[in-house]
Amino acid sequence: MSDLRERAQALDTEDALAPLRELFTLDDTVYLDGNSLGALPRHVPARVQEVITREWGELRIRSWGESGWWTAPERIGDRIAPIVGAAAGQIVVGDSTSVNVFKALVAATRLAPEGRDEILVDARTFPTDGYIAASAARMTGHRIVPVAPADVPDALGPRTAAVLLNHVDYRSGRLHDLPGLTAAARAAGAIAVWDLCHSAGALPVGLDEHGVDLAVGCTYKYLNGGPGSPAYLYVAERHQASFDSPLPGWTSHADPFAMTPGYSPADGAVRGRVGTPDILSMLALEASLDVWDGVGIEAVRAKSLALTDFFLECVEAYAPEGRVTSVTPAAHAERGSQVALRCDDAEPVMAELIARGVVGDLRRPDVLRFGFTPLYVGFADAERAARVLAEVLGAPAA
Amino acid sequence: MSDLRERAQALDTEDALAPLRELFTLDDTVYLDGNSLGALPRHVPARVQEVITREWGELRIRSWGESGWWTAPERIGDRIAPIVGAAAGQIVVGDSTSVNVFKALVAATRLAPEGRDEILVDARTFPTDGYIAASAARMTGHRIVPVAPADVPDALGPRTAAVLLNHVDYRSGRLHDLPGLTAAARAAGAIAVWDLCHSAGALPVGLDEHGVDLAVGCTYKYLNGGPGSPAYLYVAERHQASFDSPLPGWTSHADPFAMTPGYSPADGAVRGRVGTPDILSMLALEASLDVWDGVGIEAVRAKSLALTDFFLECVEAYAPEGRVTSVTPAAHAERGSQVALRCDDAEPVMAELIARGVVGDLRRPDVLRFGFTPLYVGFADAERAARVLAEVLGAPAA
Repeated sequence: MSDLRERAQALDTEDALAPLRELFTLDDTVYLDGNSLGALPRHVPARVQEVITREWGELRIRSWGESGWWTAPERIGDRIAPIVGAAAGQIVVGDSTSVNVFKALVAATRLAPEGRDEILVDARTFPTDGYIAASAARMTGHRIVPVAPADVPDALGPRTAAVLLNHVDYRSGRLHDLPGLTAAARAAGAIAVWDLCHSAGALPVGLDEHGVDLAVGCTYKYLNGGPGSPAYLYVAERHQASFDSPLPGWTSHADPFAMTPGYSPADGAVRGRVGTPDILSMLALEASLDVWDGVGIEAVRAKSLALTDFFLECVEAYAPEGRVTSVTPAAHAERGSQVALRCDDAEPVMAELIARGVVGDLRRPDVLRFGFTPLYVGFADAERAARVLAEVLGAPAA
Repeated sequence: MSDLRERAQALDTEDALAPLRELFTLDDTVYLDGNSLGALPRHVPARVQEVITREWGELRIRSWGESGWWTAPERIGDRIAPIVGAAAGQIVVGDSTSVNVFKALVAATRLAPEGRDEILVDARTFPTDGYIAASAARMTGHRIVPVAPADVPDALGPRTAAVLLNHVDYRSGRLHDLPGLTAAARAAGAIAVWDLCHSAGALPVGLDEHGVDLAVGCTYKYLNGGPGSPAYLYVAERHQASFDSPLPGWTSHADPFAMTPGYSPADGAVRGRVGTPDILSMLALEASLDVWDGVGIEAVRAKSLALTDFFLECVEAYAPEGRVTSVTPAAHAERGSQVALRCDDAEPVMAELIARGVVGDLRRPDVLRFGFTPLYVGFADAERAARVLAEVLGAPAA
């Protein structure tokens, strides 16, 4: 057995988070696509079955009250809050990330000082954020300024209303400086809006600590909420009284069942709600979050960095020279929980990797993406993935 | 046994739709709240279990393609289409009704002739439509004109950009004249937007036949899709090429996985999509729609009218004089599939009805609402509901 395989075994043995893997339904593939769709926690099917057969099938309409359906968006928000460093009462779950970007960005322009007409948007953003930002800008009379996150401090000015950034770049895995960029945006009088899709559940975010204004994120990646599980919106407590949603649906009303023709927003993050919550997807997410009980995000981050370090080391050791190049930063402070490797023939390479039981994904045209979910990925997985990759790339067997 | 009980038995015996009741999970209560949350079709739990354990748990990320997750919004839209009288390719499922009202209404202002600055909105609309319309108007520079649906023809004019109406009033159960009002709106050069929440699955809508421009609706009432199941958006074929969504999320892109920074909308109703679809809720809805196989909406409508006629007759026969008054129109052409009774002490009366196994609901302050879902409500249910209501209202036992 190679040294790296022995090292992997030793690292897995020492790993305090290793037992969490048993909470998930996994097989003998190496699943490195949890940054796209998290694995299924084992207890979720039974819980969803109960929701369907008992709460929907038997209690029916009564479940809005008796089964706690009505308050699910804010209750589940409070379960996500500690994972992203937020005190309770600031997160509501519901809608897609795209819809939440719209709410957050339009609201940001309304929170910003009057007369500002620019929105800075991460030039390499996940596309939906850019498309939605363009729509929000068009509808509010703002101008989009695409800018690399590192250049945001220079681009900020008296015209900047809001800044929309991704905490971790979906393609490269680069972690942006949320504390520093938030501070810069706020110092310039702008509203800082963060997309946490690729960081929540993988590393400490510290929304409250770093003074983030608004944030959104999905729940189906490192939070394992299930395919298309509802996204969330964070509204910092200091902004809640002035949060002015472009989607003031009836479930965000102060007294929704009064059914009055005039809109009067609820207090708190609840005013980020819109329509009737999609209960099946939402309660599957709620159940999924049980795997976080007693798990600290600092320990998750430590393991994530150890895993990606080790994977990069194995790739370096095994892969034929020059066939792949990491586009993920080597510095821990700049790395999320994925490794992205540039590879000329990325598409067939990924297809072959998947055929050989190593599941990552592809970002066209030339990026192989490997996501490391510390709750269920181990060091032996990392070593095996690198070894199989090397074989696919044409190296002699390690 | 009373005459009405005998009549009910006979009517149930003759009812060709009666066997459909066996497709649902029901108990010995009379469930007349299917206009709020439809009952559970029996086969749905097993299907959702398969989606979770096999598609999410085992296939994981591959299910976006192999299990047909990605195309679910348009595929399920095509399942809903015949129920509301639409040819295929014009309906996409996703998001809440509120979010779809926003898409439809903003898009309507962009489809309307330039220079028009008014949106007519049903003055007694379900509240969320009004709240969202106000936001859409504010963001597009339009003015909301509240108007009773019957007065729309008089209110239409050269300033009218769009008209937003409910097909059936959620409170009174009144059915509005969709063909006539759509024709009037179009003749005035305005875009007709219909909310079908309380009509889809209960009566023929005829979207294509009547030339409706845009429509939205929920799927958890007469379509039995489950709590908070995703809503849908109808974009008439003739408007699709110009449909300009305020929520141009990545899944509405012509080539979403190219992940280009510039937005280029897909052809067809697909451009009404926004973010990643909530698969669990969506596929539960898809399974629920199986109960419609071979069921014609005309037969459903005939039974619905027979049921509400019979219920009103029973209430008239049983209830103490003057305690309840129907606010649902007697004329078939003006009636949806619910009966709303005004009652001074509606709140305690409904509580007692529910305690005695007759589940309707309440619209504050004084409306008792009874929804009749022809797929699983029978005439004996209607008779029993009226009889128990009369007992609660203080009549001697029928």
